[in-house]
Amino acid sequence: MKLVSYLVSGRASFGLLTHNGIVDLKQKLGDKYADLKSLLADKEGLSIAKTYLNARSDIDEQDITYLPVIPNPNKILCVGMNYAEKRAEFNETSSAPTLFVRFPDSQTGHKTNIIKPAITNEFDYEGELAIIIGKAGFRISQEDALSHIAGYSCYMDGSIRDWQYTWFTAGKNWPSTGAFGPCITTSDEISDPKVLSLTTYLNGQEMQHDSVNNLVHTVPELISYISTFTHLSPGDVILTGSPGGVGKKRNPPVFMKDGDKIEVEITGIGRLTNYVVAE
Amino acid sequence: MKLVSYLVSGRASFGLLTHNGIVDLKQKLGDKYADLKSLLADKEGLSIAKTYLNARSDIDEQDITYLPVIPNPNKILCVGMNYAEKRAEFNETSSAPTLFVRFPDSQTGHKTNIIKPAITNEFDYEGELAIIIGKAGFRISQEDALSHIAGYSCYMDGSIRDWQYTWFTAGKNWPSTGAFGPCITTSDEISDPKVLSLTTYLNGQEMQHDSVNNLVHTVPELISYISTFTHLSPGDVILTGSPGGVGKKRNPPVFMKDGDKIEVEITGIGRLTNYVVAE
Repeated sequence: MKLVSYLVSGRASFGLLTHNGIVDLKQKLGDKYADLKSLLADKEGLSIAKTYLNARSDIDEQDITYLPVIPNPNKILCVGMNYAEKRAEFNETSSAPTLFVRFPDSQTGHKTNIIKPAITNEFDYEGELAIIIGKAGFRISQEDALSHIAGYSCYMDGSIRDWQYTWFTAGKNWPSTGAFGPCITTSDEISDPKVLSLTTYLNGQEMQHDSVNNLVHTVPELISYISTFTHLSPGDVILTGSPGGVGKKRNPPVFMKDGDKIEVEITGIGRLTNYVVAE
Repeated sequence: MKLVSYLVSGRASFGLLTHNGIVDLKQKLGDKYADLKSLLADKEGLSIAKTYLNARSDIDEQDITYLPVIPNPNKILCVGMNYAEKRAEFNETSSAPTLFVRFPDSQTGHKTNIIKPAITNEFDYEGELAIIIGKAGFRISQEDALSHIAGYSCYMDGSIRDWQYTWFTAGKNWPSTGAFGPCITTSDEISDPKVLSLTTYLNGQEMQHDSVNNLVHTVPELISYISTFTHLSPGDVILTGSPGGVGKKRNPPVFMKDGDKIEVEITGIGRLTNYVVAE
């Protein structure tokens, strides 16, 4: 099951993405669930959504404007330096997961514009697997971790390299730099995220490619580690880190510029496409 | 004018802290403002609150349970390494402000318990001046910065040193480790935060003391810098950094333990008092 958030006729909605178009769940369940996050927060939510899988579609996919899959997460936790190749590129030696935070208003949806800030010439791409939490938890064991996941999505964690300095907050929170979509593929279709592989394309050319099996800190480890110190709740997002091949560490470096097309594709989920516009 | 958030008879409320007790603004204005953040979001909010300054108090201060002054900020941005003495203690050399993020659910109010996680023996105090944003802004100039501030408060940015590793997220987000209060003193009473001075007491003994005048990155610089990359909105909180004298860098180190009393006092605001309990 693939879930999406979007605008239709100026109204925020959410629904099922099917081969025949969008089944608008807000139209059907809006008195119960204001948005996709509140659907996930109800333990019956996904089962109820599933009963509409064979419903007639309400909207053509080309008539929606995609929103970030979860437009309003309480927490977006981003893992840095979590593929061996990326760690080597940045000389990272820390053994603990490195974590920074994105604010929800830095996000944008599939097929929308990503904004390259005027101030930088080092606007870099990072393709990532996003985990979306479905079941609240604190001190979650690695054994239980996967059962807390509602599903998975693609993320393009756009990075202003010359503003990253320390601790990444300033490099990762510019408006419309974090693309999130196109959809959540629910975890009943992906029993173990290790089987997924991720590819980033800049103007159609492959720039990053790796298997989620190569994560230094696995998905269960990340959920267990993060939930040691903070409560996770439905709709929270964990970005699991980006493979090697980012623009900053190429020779010569390759940065995103006005007119570029940037895409992140993950097997079993789809291809997240965005267009770079200069501020 | 001093504004507070609190529980009274199990109900969340907010009001004015006066010499005679609390004037309950939620009782009087609750149909207009759900909480202190929404009062700040209305440009008339503070003026309306001010008309109740001489009203008869509704509640004794001892009958409330303090909440974090803003229980639900959209953004809590924390500045690290912003006093010369602290920078020297940690050998910090970065010239840009170092920023990390706290989640709202890591906060607690005045006179409540702060929780020392079982996992650590390095639970450290950091007394800080908190800025509370009153007027939304993006790309705010240093000249305009102070006009975006609703007021100031004290913050005890409790830090799990052995979980800080890199980027601070994991060291700064444990439940009930960020104490925020007792009140907001509105900026009409503090025309320039440089005149403030801050003292941290552990069990009554002075541990940190410095003047806000000694901030490496001043309050206007911080607002201007942060709003370069992210939108600020009413109720957002900026923690301006902690002076030297933290426990980790003492010889021998001094960490907080069960039964301790930790206090942060700032001139013109008040004294934030909390009690450490082991998890």
